[in-house]
Amino acid sequence: MAFEITRELTQEIKALIEAQNAQELSQRYNDIHFADLAEILDTLNVEEATYLVKVLNTETTSDAIMELEDDIREAILKNLSAKEIAEELEELDTDDAADIINELPQNRVENVIAEIEDEGHAENIVDLLRYEDDTAGGLMAKELVKVDENWTVTQCLNEIKQQAENVSRIHSIYVVDEYNKLKGRLSLRDLMMAQSKKNISQIYIPKVDFVNVNTDTEEVARIMQKYDLEAIPVVDESSRLKGRITIDDIVDFIKDEAEKDYQMAAGISSDVEADDSIFELTKARLPWLVLGLLGGLGSVYIMEGFEDALEKYSRLFYFTPLIAAMAGNVGVQSSAIIVQGLANDNVKGSLLNRLLKEVGLSLINGIALSLLVILFGSITGLEQAFSLTIAISMLCVIIFAALIGTFIPIILDKKGIDPAIATGPFITTSNDIFGIFLFFYISKTILGF
Amino acid sequence: MAFEITRELTQEIKALIEAQNAQELSQRYNDIHFADLAEILDTLNVEEATYLVKVLNTETTSDAIMELEDDIREAILKNLSAKEIAEELEELDTDDAADIINELPQNRVENVIAEIEDEGHAENIVDLLRYEDDTAGGLMAKELVKVDENWTVTQCLNEIKQQAENVSRIHSIYVVDEYNKLKGRLSLRDLMMAQSKKNISQIYIPKVDFVNVNTDTEEVARIMQKYDLEAIPVVDESSRLKGRITIDDIVDFIKDEAEKDYQMAAGISSDVEADDSIFELTKARLPWLVLGLLGGLGSVYIMEGFEDALEKYSRLFYFTPLIAAMAGNVGVQSSAIIVQGLANDNVKGSLLNRLLKEVGLSLINGIALSLLVILFGSITGLEQAFSLTIAISMLCVIIFAALIGTFIPIILDKKGIDPAIATGPFITTSNDIFGIFLFFYISKTILGF
Repeated sequence: MAFEITRELTQEIKALIEAQNAQELSQRYNDIHFADLAEILDTLNVEEATYLVKVLNTETTSDAIMELEDDIREAILKNLSAKEIAEELEELDTDDAADIINELPQNRVENVIAEIEDEGHAENIVDLLRYEDDTAGGLMAKELVKVDENWTVTQCLNEIKQQAENVSRIHSIYVVDEYNKLKGRLSLRDLMMAQSKKNISQIYIPKVDFVNVNTDTEEVARIMQKYDLEAIPVVDESSRLKGRITIDDIVDFIKDEAEKDYQMAAGISSDVEADDSIFELTKARLPWLVLGLLGGLGSVYIMEGFEDALEKYSRLFYFTPLIAAMAGNVGVQSSAIIVQGLANDNVKGSLLNRLLKEVGLSLINGIALSLLVILFGSITGLEQAFSLTIAISMLCVIIFAALIGTFIPIILDKKGIDPAIATGPFITTSNDIFGIFLFFYISKTILGF
Repeated sequence: MAFEITRELTQEIKALIEAQNAQELSQRYNDIHFADLAEILDTLNVEEATYLVKVLNTETTSDAIMELEDDIREAILKNLSAKEIAEELEELDTDDAADIINELPQNRVENVIAEIEDEGHAENIVDLLRYEDDTAGGLMAKELVKVDENWTVTQCLNEIKQQAENVSRIHSIYVVDEYNKLKGRLSLRDLMMAQSKKNISQIYIPKVDFVNVNTDTEEVARIMQKYDLEAIPVVDESSRLKGRITIDDIVDFIKDEAEKDYQMAAGISSDVEADDSIFELTKARLPWLVLGLLGGLGSVYIMEGFEDALEKYSRLFYFTPLIAAMAGNVGVQSSAIIVQGLANDNVKGSLLNRLLKEVGLSLINGIALSLLVILFGSITGLEQAFSLTIAISMLCVIIFAALIGTFIPIILDKKGIDPAIATGPFITTSNDIFGIFLFFYISKTILGF
């Protein structure tokens, strides 16, 4: 339980690897949990990690490899022979094995598959390769327990004992007919409690949730979450049982999705982590900064159009960061709520209602903030007409920013584009520009410069 | 599978409720899935929803109530008698029942508990009430299957059949000694495959992951994710088995956490949704906007200190939104990466390394952006010294903003404060102010106004 990587542990392992002390290493680490081994591999360099993978037994290393970051895994696999990779795949469930095959360079795929000794396992993996990544087919594993509706309970129990050898978690037992069409499910509990001579068709539950091989991963996640499922069977176009998706795969997906939305909102365009290379991080971050820069230069251009204000109302220019900040913050808030609402499927009601609500909301927030500005003006001795102008134009900017923040994601979503792209730099930048324009335009109208 | 709420369906149900046609309603909706019923309840007003809950059988309604938003559930429970609530609790697992009890007003708690007919169930619920919300004790359910290490396989199977009546998903069978101390686990599969005369002590797996009742929910989530667990037993200070946490509770927690980090980054301080009331939304959003406003007013104050620039270099003021945007964007990017890294436990290496990396990264980004500014200057005919000044000061602001964005979350985390609070408005606001100050200070130093 209390496994922790310490500097000493890493040093020790590195020393053993350098001394090529395979015996000591396998004695110590063959029975370690794969998740712990993954953490160890993470602290080693590629050569050291490769050596450790080669030395330890594949039962542990195969699962550990699956836990690694893509780039580290790729580097280690590069150092392994086709036969060594095949030995790892032998131990993995078909879904994980197929994921690894998908990551291999095209010219190694055939060699690796040819080296897998268990024919059935190899065929199952190959079957999975033809499904798209972001579908139920691409996510499912072939490992599952199924029984024929015509069997008896005793027959069924014996059969299950055999099938279960390859399935780490049974969850549900699926019931199929003689054509492998999904008919229903059977809980292991019900089966254990049933009389042994009964027929499966008498005791199975005909109601079963399932998805199609082509169902979107997102939809699978929604269904499994909504109905609290720990596993869901996957069928093909003729209702034949093809595989099964378990909740652990969905947990990763849900987390990744939520983190992706957050990263997009923060202006990070691909899935990077603090420990990625400077190059990777720059690639993910710089484009959004360039967008921000262009927005800022746009603001420069807009203000040049209002340079008359410099003479009599130069103080207006002190307030541009304030206006930009309000436009940005309000826009990000509104869009975050809508993006999360769309992701969780709880944005209901008509567009008109949402419009009215958003205007109401920003009126309340905007008026409160405007009063603060007026208060600030009277304390610091600003001219009354001037601080009133700032308050009014800020109020307009806030309402405008809230509407943009709300409706851009909704429109993108309706057009089938991921609305998360609209949060963050995109919204802040456009709101900055339009906000500043609106601010000067309204100020000019009121003050007349 | 394909349940969908339509306007027609809602109208139909509303009509049946108004006609008080209890018979028709229970005929149609007694066997509906609780998650679908929850969606239906969501579209009704409180009186209608209450009526439907009273009419349908508690097996479905109890789970549906658990799925509702807190405020809707609270409103419905208000309309139910203590006996009616007790009937709902009777159907729920102890963890859910305890959650509902915790939401009830203090003066109703005793009455409701007194009305629960199943004494054991009531006692289990009461036991759970004493644990803190954000600990394993507060999350666990009492429902689990456990066997004594001294039993035989046959004894065990019979016992499990009885215990399993109350447990919807068995997952693992826990093995305890005569003092209820957790010794290990037994998979249902192993049990089924074992010879019936064997003793449990011969076949159980003595290695079992577990958490303590006081373990943080966050730590529970980390362990269950890392080790791919679908359930984990919870023990007290004397290693006695007290309950069990299942993955579905953790899925909700993981999702909530990821969404909370995102909401904080967007400047939304409590868990709100698009369909919450304007008041709730204002409460969550306004404080951060006020912070932004104060930041903006701070910038006004800073620029007043540099008003000399107005004479010769008034154009500097055109660039403040640009500087503020860059400082904000860079800060948010850096902090988002660190906050996610801290949440996923993959921020490694020394502070000095991180410092060097962050400086390197922002140098690359900053120089690229500075070159764009110089390019912009030469195209639009800005004085060369002027655009160079802007480029240099922007570069400094970017490095500064990246350092703030990186280290504030790390420092907060070290002090035990949720680093997510540092992302979003907090970072953007402080970076705005310091960025603008730095911009003018450096410009003044170079241009000498």
